[in-house]
Amino acid sequence: MDAPTQTRTVSPRAQQVCSFLQQDKLRAWIAWRPDELLMLSGYFPYWGASFLIYFADAEPLLFVPQIEPRDHIPAGLQVQEYPWGDLKCPDPYAVLVSEIRSVLAKAGAKPENVGMNAGASRTSLPIQAAEQIPIPEDFAERLSALTAKADGRRQAAFAVLYGRKTREEVEAIRLANQVANVGLDAFFENLQSGVPEAYVAAAVESAIYRQIGRDGIFHSRGWAMVQSGPNSALAGRFNRSTGRCLEDGDLVLIELATCVNGYWSDLTRTATVGSAKPEVAEILSLVRDAQQAAIDGIRAGVSAGFIDRLARDKIAAQGLSSFFTHHTGHHVGFRYHDPGFLIAPGISAKLESGMVITLEPGAYVPERGGGARIEDNVLVTESGHEVLSRTRAGEYPGDKRP
Amino acid sequence: MDAPTQTRTVSPRAQQVCSFLQQDKLRAWIAWRPDELLMLSGYFPYWGASFLIYFADAEPLLFVPQIEPRDHIPAGLQVQEYPWGDLKCPDPYAVLVSEIRSVLAKAGAKPENVGMNAGASRTSLPIQAAEQIPIPEDFAERLSALTAKADGRRQAAFAVLYGRKTREEVEAIRLANQVANVGLDAFFENLQSGVPEAYVAAAVESAIYRQIGRDGIFHSRGWAMVQSGPNSALAGRFNRSTGRCLEDGDLVLIELATCVNGYWSDLTRTATVGSAKPEVAEILSLVRDAQQAAIDGIRAGVSAGFIDRLARDKIAAQGLSSFFTHHTGHHVGFRYHDPGFLIAPGISAKLESGMVITLEPGAYVPERGGGARIEDNVLVTESGHEVLSRTRAGEYPGDKRP
Repeated sequence: MDAPTQTRTVSPRAQQVCSFLQQDKLRAWIAWRPDELLMLSGYFPYWGASFLIYFADAEPLLFVPQIEPRDHIPAGLQVQEYPWGDLKCPDPYAVLVSEIRSVLAKAGAKPENVGMNAGASRTSLPIQAAEQIPIPEDFAERLSALTAKADGRRQAAFAVLYGRKTREEVEAIRLANQVANVGLDAFFENLQSGVPEAYVAAAVESAIYRQIGRDGIFHSRGWAMVQSGPNSALAGRFNRSTGRCLEDGDLVLIELATCVNGYWSDLTRTATVGSAKPEVAEILSLVRDAQQAAIDGIRAGVSAGFIDRLARDKIAAQGLSSFFTHHTGHHVGFRYHDPGFLIAPGISAKLESGMVITLEPGAYVPERGGGARIEDNVLVTESGHEVLSRTRAGEYPGDKRP
Repeated sequence: MDAPTQTRTVSPRAQQVCSFLQQDKLRAWIAWRPDELLMLSGYFPYWGASFLIYFADAEPLLFVPQIEPRDHIPAGLQVQEYPWGDLKCPDPYAVLVSEIRSVLAKAGAKPENVGMNAGASRTSLPIQAAEQIPIPEDFAERLSALTAKADGRRQAAFAVLYGRKTREEVEAIRLANQVANVGLDAFFENLQSGVPEAYVAAAVESAIYRQIGRDGIFHSRGWAMVQSGPNSALAGRFNRSTGRCLEDGDLVLIELATCVNGYWSDLTRTATVGSAKPEVAEILSLVRDAQQAAIDGIRAGVSAGFIDRLARDKIAAQGLSSFFTHHTGHHVGFRYHDPGFLIAPGISAKLESGMVITLEPGAYVPERGGGARIEDNVLVTESGHEVLSRTRAGEYPGDKRP
């Protein structure tokens, strides 16, 4: 295949994607998962039934259901509708696959030069978040026939694109964190003895949803899970709210996923109701120290395993290492959990400037009746780091409405 | 293959599933999507990484992540954990696929006798609803190698199982509708001029989340989308809340998905703020009549197309048929939208006793500045029907807490 004859130099993201395509001698990439669309083009789908054809040497083309809202599709993105949602069209996917085939043929792309992530995974949610649209199996097969076979090395190279956030993307993730902090304010305000966990979580989600309509926010949704007292000791295994009422002396943990305009924040806070019992207060204090140690170590060039050890050693020093049962962190931003390396024991991958990662050590000690985790979202910079989740809510531009 | 030597007669659901397996000469079925697990076994997964092996002639076996909560797994279901969530296990899926292979071999099942829905679709959400767990492509391939090739006819027969709800399942869907009605009470209470759409929606979701912990409710989550005034005229294309403030004279539409313990309700209400302008009040009144006409026609033995026509003719009679752009209904209960036939023009499939369907005609008229839809969930019975979504919230057993 000839090298592409044109290179677009539109944005840092477009440069990254084109460079990926060129290295792999791909003429096009087909994307349809919400996080892939967002990462490639800044577009966050409503229905989750949009398909982007990203060309190595031409402008991307986005196929959307005819009933897709248009007002949040980035300006300048070429859009073509297909008859999904048209009661009179018995098989919109047949129309779509034929259009895609024709567009690829016009671009001279053969299946071996067209990449796509196939497979059963479908991680992130579109704006309509209650259910994902079923993709007919025969359509998936016809689409696969237009693309190269799955290639683990290529998929890994694609996943690397998620890690290298542009400045604009970092700002979008910062906004998600600012909105999440509005939710966390509601968490702290509701920490009173006698209030059920589910009530606290509901107040947090409500505060986040209410941000829709503020400057630049067309979508805002939180998933809050609150665990108190003995339930907080389960938070290393799973997070869910129950009807348990908070009690004085409890540790209370909130795990909070927040999606704003498609970009994600992933935060955890642990607080106390009244004065925590000394045996659980120690856990909280230790986890706080461990998290700060990990954050303090972050800068471009250090390994993920090194950062993990900074946190893990602190917890081990207090004899609690068997209660810190999970990784220290992961990439975040295009999804609740972005693909890419973990911040975990023995991971030699190195942090790079522009990466956004979570730092979330925890210790969950059933025999003491409590567990704690603290999680922030941190941008890696050349000289160190910036904690995106510590910009307070009051500082975000949309927060001026009474 | 020999016929199965034993037939379990545990529950009406187990009878249905075994009969499906026997008709297809299958020894086992592998399920992992939340709605499939729920339908087959009553189990609603937390992480969405559980795998059920349903045997034709032995008790089902459920593989769960070692960090899965256990307290809501139905009593009597055989459970085996695999090391998903274990920081020390680099590839839990390798362990899982090897266990599944061994279990199938012991049961004498060969790939041609093992069914599974493969493919890219993954419709419903587990309890952890913010993100779906990515399933590694190589695992999906290894699992597929243990099962028969995709077979459209078999998948269609499997989908039929969704339509035939047992009495217990109907009660679970009724509970979801009762909880949804608690949310709708919050909707009606918040319909005041000056309140943003997003605030109304947030109040509805909050009311639904707060039901967790009431008798028998371990999971309760709503997705509310509120559209007012001119935005309601878009509700035939998509549903989303904006920051628009309600105004006197508006139509206000709420689309509400509710999941309680894994079972779903799908409701829509349209109301007015103050006195609706006559040109939109007419739309609402017409839609109400159309919906009631469709509901009145429901009984076992009538066709889906006939029910659709009852609603569609009413709207056509007022010259608004071009504004009723979607189907009249669909199956509901194991998902927000269950698989199976639509209640739509020309569908000859017949309603059967035990089916639960939505009835949701609408008319969306931009030039009049408003749209309306009313949606209920209706159980088909031999003699007629029962509207599950009209049991008022106050009647549900959990609603005794102050």
